[in-house]
Amino acid sequence: MGIRIKGARILVAGGGSLVGSHLTAALLAREVGEVVIFDPIAFDAEDALGNLKSDARVTMLRGNLMKPHQIIDQMANIDGAVNLAAYMTLGVSQNPVDGIDLNVRGHMHFLEAARIQSVRKVIFASSNAVYGYGIGGGIAEDTPHHNVGIPAAAAAYGATKILGEQLCRMYFAKHGLDYVVLRFSTVYGENQHYRAANALYIIETYDRLKAGLPPQLFGDGSESKDFVYAGDVARAICMALEAEATDVALNTSGGVGISTKDLVALVMKIAGSNLEPEYIADDGRVRLPTGSGLHFINDKADEVLGWRPEMDLEEGIRRLLADHEDRKAREKRS
Amino acid sequence: MGIRIKGARILVAGGGSLVGSHLTAALLAREVGEVVIFDPIAFDAEDALGNLKSDARVTMLRGNLMKPHQIIDQMANIDGAVNLAAYMTLGVSQNPVDGIDLNVRGHMHFLEAARIQSVRKVIFASSNAVYGYGIGGGIAEDTPHHNVGIPAAAAAYGATKILGEQLCRMYFAKHGLDYVVLRFSTVYGENQHYRAANALYIIETYDRLKAGLPPQLFGDGSESKDFVYAGDVARAICMALEAEATDVALNTSGGVGISTKDLVALVMKIAGSNLEPEYIADDGRVRLPTGSGLHFINDKADEVLGWRPEMDLEEGIRRLLADHEDRKAREKRS
Repeated sequence: MGIRIKGARILVAGGGSLVGSHLTAALLAREVGEVVIFDPIAFDAEDALGNLKSDARVTMLRGNLMKPHQIIDQMANIDGAVNLAAYMTLGVSQNPVDGIDLNVRGHMHFLEAARIQSVRKVIFASSNAVYGYGIGGGIAEDTPHHNVGIPAAAAAYGATKILGEQLCRMYFAKHGLDYVVLRFSTVYGENQHYRAANALYIIETYDRLKAGLPPQLFGDGSESKDFVYAGDVARAICMALEAEATDVALNTSGGVGISTKDLVALVMKIAGSNLEPEYIADDGRVRLPTGSGLHFINDKADEVLGWRPEMDLEEGIRRLLADHEDRKAREKRS
Repeated sequence: MGIRIKGARILVAGGGSLVGSHLTAALLAREVGEVVIFDPIAFDAEDALGNLKSDARVTMLRGNLMKPHQIIDQMANIDGAVNLAAYMTLGVSQNPVDGIDLNVRGHMHFLEAARIQSVRKVIFASSNAVYGYGIGGGIAEDTPHHNVGIPAAAAAYGATKILGEQLCRMYFAKHGLDYVVLRFSTVYGENQHYRAANALYIIETYDRLKAGLPPQLFGDGSESKDFVYAGDVARAICMALEAEATDVALNTSGGVGISTKDLVALVMKIAGSNLEPEYIADDGRVRLPTGSGLHFINDKADEVLGWRPEMDLEEGIRRLLADHEDRKAREKRS
């Protein structure tokens, strides 16, 4: 079933985040009755939401999906709920037990709470990590999970997302809980956090250029990423809440690949730099190998929801970096 | 590193089981110092171990991997540990939260306990479910996880095993905990339990024949399974404990596929029946679709451990069914 956002109460677990901030703005623009942000307020969540917090329709709740009584209580009288709360690959690598616990156990608590409180529809933030890594070309929703020869944390993160999706299927089959799974590609945008390896690279490259240092490229720079703007993702979540669609998993991606080399060229253009990139070997950090031309085909999201990404990558990166400059300036002043 | 089983203390989580009973016998034959069976003693575990319990070197402990203090305590002074404790697809389907909890959280507790108590080597019982279902032909260890168009519980079960394997990789990388992952195909043998969909089919078919009913075949009977005898699996575990091999995942399979039609013919031969099989449509139970000619290539286990399966399928099924008859006779008497 679909939830009419206008006037509804929507809970967003892990809402103090990049996607959470854009989603909150999108829900407010659609005249939501109340947005309940359920978040442990770690990860500078207060900052991520910024001025949105002052809107009377935004309720900030300090809550943790690992504590079932908290999410069960807060899910009362909620119309639709979105689970954005997860450790990503870097977090799983640093804290495997905590990360896997939140992604698996935490998501089970989220679904149990939705079931117990008769929430009408849930959206689960999945990831293109369900396809694993080391693959290239165009990836549609029926692609299997490739986990050979990739970092353990990346494979584990993908497996937690597969589990999360299959749990949604089971709650739909057993309890009639409507859901849409959205598999995000690399999300970027204003309020960018520092936990996602791929988007972080944009900011790091920019900071190096501003410090007069050459950008760094790993390998031959041909690895491809598929970036999707957080505002486009937020719109997909709103459309998935409102659509009749249920029991379906959809790529929510930019739909085009960009090589690291081209990405660096774009950041250089925006920064007004013409320093020669440095090609360097692996620096030991967790990196996610991708094949050439990798992108995630998003035709199904268009068919099912009528959603397509709208943001131009250059414009989106300009916004991300302008926001990054604003934050640095604010930090300096404070 | 390798553990010399002779004189060692080996803990087997989930040891009150089909594989656990064969493993206990194999460890005793190799003059183990002590086998610690750590099991909640659900699933008629007492019965599964039978006379093995009376051996002074076998310690039965009522313990649950969901309780970290229990497994941490019991892992003290253990040389090598084997984790067989898991819900299979049927169990995950019936109790998704409990099943996924045991397979993921329980395994994390097992690994944490091994790390804390400086256990020298662990063996993790994984499954060919890491490859998903709906595929056919010969499957080697580098095959991705196929989870489209299959029951949610089967995909979820496979994802829990992928997670379990990747956790082993992380504990090896972070803490130097040596491990071998063994990916079992369909295990069968004496002490067969009633929780595994595939092996159960052998017993059900036999019971129907004995009751004068025709055997039932689903679809066209061409679906293929790869059976491996529990005694062969137990030998693989012992060899993996003793080998220097670490940080590796190995198919532990029969290595040959048998179609459902041929399997039924084999059971009919053993039962001395010539009733015509009934071809029936899906009966709504969880079934695992398999492609034609499915089998799991076990050359790597031979290369790494020198292990190959030895039991002939007809002989193995004869033993399974003779044991089944014995149990029925004992139940009648008691």
